[in-house]
Amino acid sequence: MPRDNISAVYRLKVPPAMAAHRAQTLALEQSVEMPAEAVTDLRVLDEVLARVERIEPQADGTSLAHLRLACETVCEDAGQLMNMLFGNCSLQPDVELVDIELPPSLAQSFGGPNIGIDGLRRLTDVHGRPLTCSALKPIGSTVDQLAGLCRTFAQAGIDIIKDDHGWANQRSAPFAERVTACQQAMREANGASGRRAVYAPSLYGTQVQMQRQIELARTHGVGAVLIAPLICGVATFNALKREHPDLAFIAHPAFGGASRIAPSVLLGKLFRLFGADAVIFPNHGGRFTYPAEICQDIARSNRAPWHGLRPTMPVPAGGMSVERVTEIKREYGADTMLLIGGSLLIARERLAERSRAFVEAVAAPGEVAA
Amino acid sequence: MPRDNISAVYRLKVPPAMAAHRAQTLALEQSVEMPAEAVTDLRVLDEVLARVERIEPQADGTSLAHLRLACETVCEDAGQLMNMLFGNCSLQPDVELVDIELPPSLAQSFGGPNIGIDGLRRLTDVHGRPLTCSALKPIGSTVDQLAGLCRTFAQAGIDIIKDDHGWANQRSAPFAERVTACQQAMREANGASGRRAVYAPSLYGTQVQMQRQIELARTHGVGAVLIAPLICGVATFNALKREHPDLAFIAHPAFGGASRIAPSVLLGKLFRLFGADAVIFPNHGGRFTYPAEICQDIARSNRAPWHGLRPTMPVPAGGMSVERVTEIKREYGADTMLLIGGSLLIARERLAERSRAFVEAVAAPGEVAA
Repeated sequence: MPRDNISAVYRLKVPPAMAAHRAQTLALEQSVEMPAEAVTDLRVLDEVLARVERIEPQADGTSLAHLRLACETVCEDAGQLMNMLFGNCSLQPDVELVDIELPPSLAQSFGGPNIGIDGLRRLTDVHGRPLTCSALKPIGSTVDQLAGLCRTFAQAGIDIIKDDHGWANQRSAPFAERVTACQQAMREANGASGRRAVYAPSLYGTQVQMQRQIELARTHGVGAVLIAPLICGVATFNALKREHPDLAFIAHPAFGGASRIAPSVLLGKLFRLFGADAVIFPNHGGRFTYPAEICQDIARSNRAPWHGLRPTMPVPAGGMSVERVTEIKREYGADTMLLIGGSLLIARERLAERSRAFVEAVAAPGEVAA
Repeated sequence: MPRDNISAVYRLKVPPAMAAHRAQTLALEQSVEMPAEAVTDLRVLDEVLARVERIEPQADGTSLAHLRLACETVCEDAGQLMNMLFGNCSLQPDVELVDIELPPSLAQSFGGPNIGIDGLRRLTDVHGRPLTCSALKPIGSTVDQLAGLCRTFAQAGIDIIKDDHGWANQRSAPFAERVTACQQAMREANGASGRRAVYAPSLYGTQVQMQRQIELARTHGVGAVLIAPLICGVATFNALKREHPDLAFIAHPAFGGASRIAPSVLLGKLFRLFGADAVIFPNHGGRFTYPAEICQDIARSNRAPWHGLRPTMPVPAGGMSVERVTEIKREYGADTMLLIGGSLLIARERLAERSRAFVEAVAAPGEVAA
């Protein structure tokens, strides 16, 4: 097998005595997908067949199998990378993908974030503290209601105001009208405040549809968008990111319930690899049940040096509240975006006040993790 | 809530006393995604907020929650349907999507299979018995090797010869060269045999790339393609299917490991809804562990009358062998495609013979389920 290849680590939930055999069948499944005895071409056996590098028994009775997959199977295509890493074995419940590593050339060909953490800071002109983010909810609202929300959030000093990920082209607020009105509200609010709050509309549909949505949004000056890579397909996400190298992409984890890819791999590494400038993930203690350690792993994978790819901004979210801002800042540090949605909106007529409280809590000096 | 809406049934893995509360938070998560108290617009509360219809305690201690979701949230977009059914709650491990039902108008707007079971029979001119299918393996093979395989399989009488789902644009056999050579081999074999064996190349990448691949394939007379809807995104799949209403789409389950969507929903109903003419699924007793009952549920959902959508051809696969043909025929009946790959190729120099044995076993008279 050539030197430049992909490493993938899988947790095997089989008795330790079975681990070596299971790893071997996994290597077949994720490469030639046929018995090795049936392969007649020696080059394929030597260079294409995935290889079991080593197996590490774990204290909990599972085993970690380290596999090497040939780069030539991936064709620098994002969907194909997912296919080779977890296509068929996603259907086998005794396998979990727990880590990946790529050769630098493959990482560079996907390219990672367009602007990353630094770019999001330049875009919003926010330095030395976490960014703040809120969401336009609920779906079913009218364009006027959403533009009003934009104005309230922007005036309160929130940095990024994103569509809820449930927004597509609903008749109560079709994409074109929504984007026009919300971006106009942002422009006015920014004009008055001298700040650079950013509106990020949610993309939906196919690559061609998303392309049109981005073009429309750009004519209004939109500089960031929300995208759900597991719904639209990672190849579409990666292609759009390449076509718009100055645009920020905020990745939403919806449909990420392929629960047997470790979140630090899927949201931490793969989303970054394909180009997320910011990755929203379900923080611990909210509506979702990821433990703190997994959340920290995601943030670490988003920001760690990796083949020269820009760092991605982690966005702990999912039922966060103003009351938890200090704790989240302490945990995740400054290179973080704090996203609070429903917990602001529940203030109803005191929304502006509560949004300002959010902004002030994030801006407040105090202990911030390195 | 208006009459025309989507029903979704979720299994809740919480203590029965918690089920009502859990169902209510699920209804919020999958619609307005904020506390109901924070919703100020009465229309949204009345028409957009998902509704818990009823909760059925189960013998195993779980509960089934029947929810109604508003059609207006889906915008007739396939990705958005996945998002509203299982976007955020896919990240919550106590929730499994176990059934769905749609209003006829929404089902018709997605459209289901282009040609379905009847069309695949017309395409291949095979009636009254299951279809046979094999795969071009392994990735890493050359174009000549693959064209040779096509010839052997077609001469042996196999009906559909598909690319392995690991094929993209690998340098050993790039898409354009592979499709040209394989389709040419099929044409020659069909010319000699008077049969109508079909080659189905595997699509990869984005909608725009797949569109180009389809156009290229069509110029060579290709009439069927293989697609992995969970990798390319269901919106892309559905859009391609609409743009090519005479083309057969064979759906591959790769990356379907969102294991908390019941396979009968994901592979049985949703793949059919978005347009799979044939759905490959991991049959019991092979390399995968779906129990027989789940496999039968998939086949049933593929074929049952449903809003006038064409029935989809179920394709039990994943480590099947010639020795199991009689059993599979008995279990699934005639409106089935039998897919055997590695178990043919392992015969190596006796591949033609073993392929003929496959074809003869399928054609043999004998007990076939209704």
